[in-house]
Amino acid sequence: VTLFDVAAESPTPRAPLSRVRLVVAYDGGGFHGFARNPGVRTVAGLLTDVLEKILRHRVELTCAGRTDKGVHAWGQVVTFDASAAHLDLAALARSVNALCGPAVVVRDAAVVPADFDARFSADSRLYRYRIVNRPEADPFLAGRAWHVPDPLDVRDMELAGDPLIGEHDFSSFCRRPKPGPDGGDVSLRRRVLSVAWHDEGDGLLRFEIEATAFCHQMVRSIVGSLVDTGLGRRRAGVMKAVLEARDRSAAGAVAPPDGLYLWAVRYAGWSSDRP
Amino acid sequence: VTLFDVAAESPTPRAPLSRVRLVVAYDGGGFHGFARNPGVRTVAGLLTDVLEKILRHRVELTCAGRTDKGVHAWGQVVTFDASAAHLDLAALARSVNALCGPAVVVRDAAVVPADFDARFSADSRLYRYRIVNRPEADPFLAGRAWHVPDPLDVRDMELAGDPLIGEHDFSSFCRRPKPGPDGGDVSLRRRVLSVAWHDEGDGLLRFEIEATAFCHQMVRSIVGSLVDTGLGRRRAGVMKAVLEARDRSAAGAVAPPDGLYLWAVRYAGWSSDRP
Repeated sequence: VTLFDVAAESPTPRAPLSRVRLVVAYDGGGFHGFARNPGVRTVAGLLTDVLEKILRHRVELTCAGRTDKGVHAWGQVVTFDASAAHLDLAALARSVNALCGPAVVVRDAAVVPADFDARFSADSRLYRYRIVNRPEADPFLAGRAWHVPDPLDVRDMELAGDPLIGEHDFSSFCRRPKPGPDGGDVSLRRRVLSVAWHDEGDGLLRFEIEATAFCHQMVRSIVGSLVDTGLGRRRAGVMKAVLEARDRSAAGAVAPPDGLYLWAVRYAGWSSDRP
Repeated sequence: VTLFDVAAESPTPRAPLSRVRLVVAYDGGGFHGFARNPGVRTVAGLLTDVLEKILRHRVELTCAGRTDKGVHAWGQVVTFDASAAHLDLAALARSVNALCGPAVVVRDAAVVPADFDARFSADSRLYRYRIVNRPEADPFLAGRAWHVPDPLDVRDMELAGDPLIGEHDFSSFCRRPKPGPDGGDVSLRRRVLSVAWHDEGDGLLRFEIEATAFCHQMVRSIVGSLVDTGLGRRRAGVMKAVLEARDRSAAGAVAPPDGLYLWAVRYAGWSSDRP
């Protein structure tokens, strides 16, 4: 009988329960996204399997942001309930890292109030997008940045990003979601708190966008459109019209997942990038 | 008949010849070292095959430093002779990068005087060694840094490194070479120009060592011994005695290849890290 079989025989964690919060970093390159998906390797699948082996009871993960295939995380946050008996958080983190690492690494572990929820307690999410803007690629950023060989005008990309700030309907930058449980349309209104481009030197560019929440493919779709303006394919002034079109076809191509990182999730008084 | 078969039928490049110098970066993780080695994937093997396909004649590469399996390069320098007819360096670099990238990337290509030799014209080599000194690993530095979970005393490692500067017999830090062509011992005297530790923050440490030349496994052996002192396993003052012992068993364990980068090769008035 393996530890996993024991876990399978304990369908629910034994009371008393502790709500545990983990900060998780991962290289998305080896995973078919975060969410569990039978038959493929996913971050939640691996983490859940390993946590169930260690804790010897069923584990239900909640995450702050369900990253797509190939998307990375530095400050992903997950919460779950653990049986409180013998709960040693440092040992838990070490065990997870020994079994999952280095592709998935627990950077912080804490017991939080029972009503703390990785997804619903979050005030905002901050994503980073990295671009290598040089004629030649960087072997150490393969799969971890978008290689754009032609020169980008960062000032134009800054101007183009400005109209995104504030609350808008982001239909032009999101994959159309399935209808809601009542059959009605799901709102794609989101509030963007900040947008910024950083030139790190040597042709390395970093885009940062913080919003209360994001819809599907929103960051990659925004980056794709901003890069179009940076390459001179569209004027920087066009982004307001794209936003107002509320039409997917008005936006540029979706940027590849390689450059995207769920960098930080912010909660009242706490942020996952510096736990 | 493929391009490669054509190359095979032209055993030597046609005159007139141009001496070409390339600066090459590579992630050593996917290669069994730099040097050609039949039956395994090596950097020189891949580069030579690709250059011969493009140039349609035999290519003999000379490199500034033969890196071992798993060791990376940012500023490796190679020279070779190319048939001068129709030699377009920008097109050559683009073609190599299209066929080799992103694991191996040509960062610069130039025609140099015929007596310029990647190995023998070099004044010095600069290696970097990266360490992640945190309890948990970094998923984005897996294979690209040495993860040392216990805290390192950087000041002790600085003190321990000081006696290495200058000209010494580095027998304690090198794999014993095969006897020379005359059956005599090969000298392991080398001149170290500088040694430095840099704390990049967030537990990232960077070691830099520059020498006119290095012997086999010298940097990894030095790093292994310095980390021993940083962990408190040896006193910092012991390094002078280790050096003077001229005995491999006096040094600590060899550090893993993951953290090592051939960063720059310096020639009269030119350095490969900023070509």
